[in-house]
Amino acid sequence: MALAHKNLPCEARATRFTEIASIADGHQKTVPVLDDDGKIVGDSWAIAEYLENTYPDKPSLFGGASGRALTLFVQDWAIATLHIGLINLIVLDIFLSLSPADKEYFRTSREKRFGRPLEEVQAGREERLPAFRQSLQPLRMLLSGQEWIGGEGPLYADYTVFAPFQWARLVSNFPLLEEDDIIRAWFERCLDLYDGLGRKAQMAG
Amino acid sequence: MALAHKNLPCEARATRFTEIASIADGHQKTVPVLDDDGKIVGDSWAIAEYLENTYPDKPSLFGGASGRALTLFVQDWAIATLHIGLINLIVLDIFLSLSPADKEYFRTSREKRFGRPLEEVQAGREERLPAFRQSLQPLRMLLSGQEWIGGEGPLYADYTVFAPFQWARLVSNFPLLEEDDIIRAWFERCLDLYDGLGRKAQMAG
Repeated sequence: MALAHKNLPCEARATRFTEIASIADGHQKTVPVLDDDGKIVGDSWAIAEYLENTYPDKPSLFGGASGRALTLFVQDWAIATLHIGLINLIVLDIFLSLSPADKEYFRTSREKRFGRPLEEVQAGREERLPAFRQSLQPLRMLLSGQEWIGGEGPLYADYTVFAPFQWARLVSNFPLLEEDDIIRAWFERCLDLYDGLGRKAQMAG
Repeated sequence: MALAHKNLPCEARATRFTEIASIADGHQKTVPVLDDDGKIVGDSWAIAEYLENTYPDKPSLFGGASGRALTLFVQDWAIATLHIGLINLIVLDIFLSLSPADKEYFRTSREKRFGRPLEEVQAGREERLPAFRQSLQPLRMLLSGQEWIGGEGPLYADYTVFAPFQWARLVSNFPLLEEDDIIRAWFERCLDLYDGLGRKAQMAG
């Protein structure tokens, strides 16, 4: 989404967890990884900063220095509230969506992190769903007054919140949001951006 | 804080709940209210926007249009997470800090809102404190990498998060944050701003 925002053409390659070591220089531990004509950058935020600094004449991802600082708050909120909240609701769905090669790695590493089986982490999610939905209230309040987190148009702040929802959409049918949740309408707008780039996205099989 | 940020001299008047109707034009329902040479503006965000639009050559509160949009997210987070979280922990302390004239109004209006006595709302707060502290994690993450929510210097986004903490400081001794919480250091920096403006603040007696 950040590359499309900057009008930069790119080729996206879905990558399995267990294939990350084969990316580019072989030193990457996580996705996404950007290969910009041989310049390798890992980590979403580092990529966004790289793009903003390297292509300053293209549409801004942050909207200036203050916008950059405040975007970090949105990102930190997305990690602490949304990403972690989601994982606790759909971690078993994520596991079930993976290729056989990734399944063992994912179960072992995540069960070590959680200290219990994935089945137990996800159990009782219907009872925990209202609290998750409540935790999204700041986003709901914001979107009741403006179309995008970035205001009149989308910014990187939108993409950093879009990402966990997109991940969930691709691996789980669990209804994270109520049908009439204003966040859903915003998410659909995000999916429509850049000729429906988000709608075409697929996980590594 | 917004006025000081804009280098605008002002006279602050602490006002009791039950005196709000006596402010300026008599049409105000809440504080703060700004009287800028006869121009009356109520509501913190409306005041911030008024100051930004009326004094564009003074230091910016938002850092541009994108910064303004993203500041709203910080404000919505401060309301939904911090302000509401705080009220549930110190509402009885707030009551006890009020003048006799305000006490009846506050108890009646808040107990109607909560549907139960203030004593019950505040009860068991020690057990609820860890969840409140955990809800501040996005702020903690942000401040681990930058001095201010606004980045290199404070912006309105800082003041909108500062405000609920300042309110709590003035009416309650309950330790909302752990001693070594990085948010405390940021709060102290806020109190130091503008010749210690925040340290000098007092509630209406």
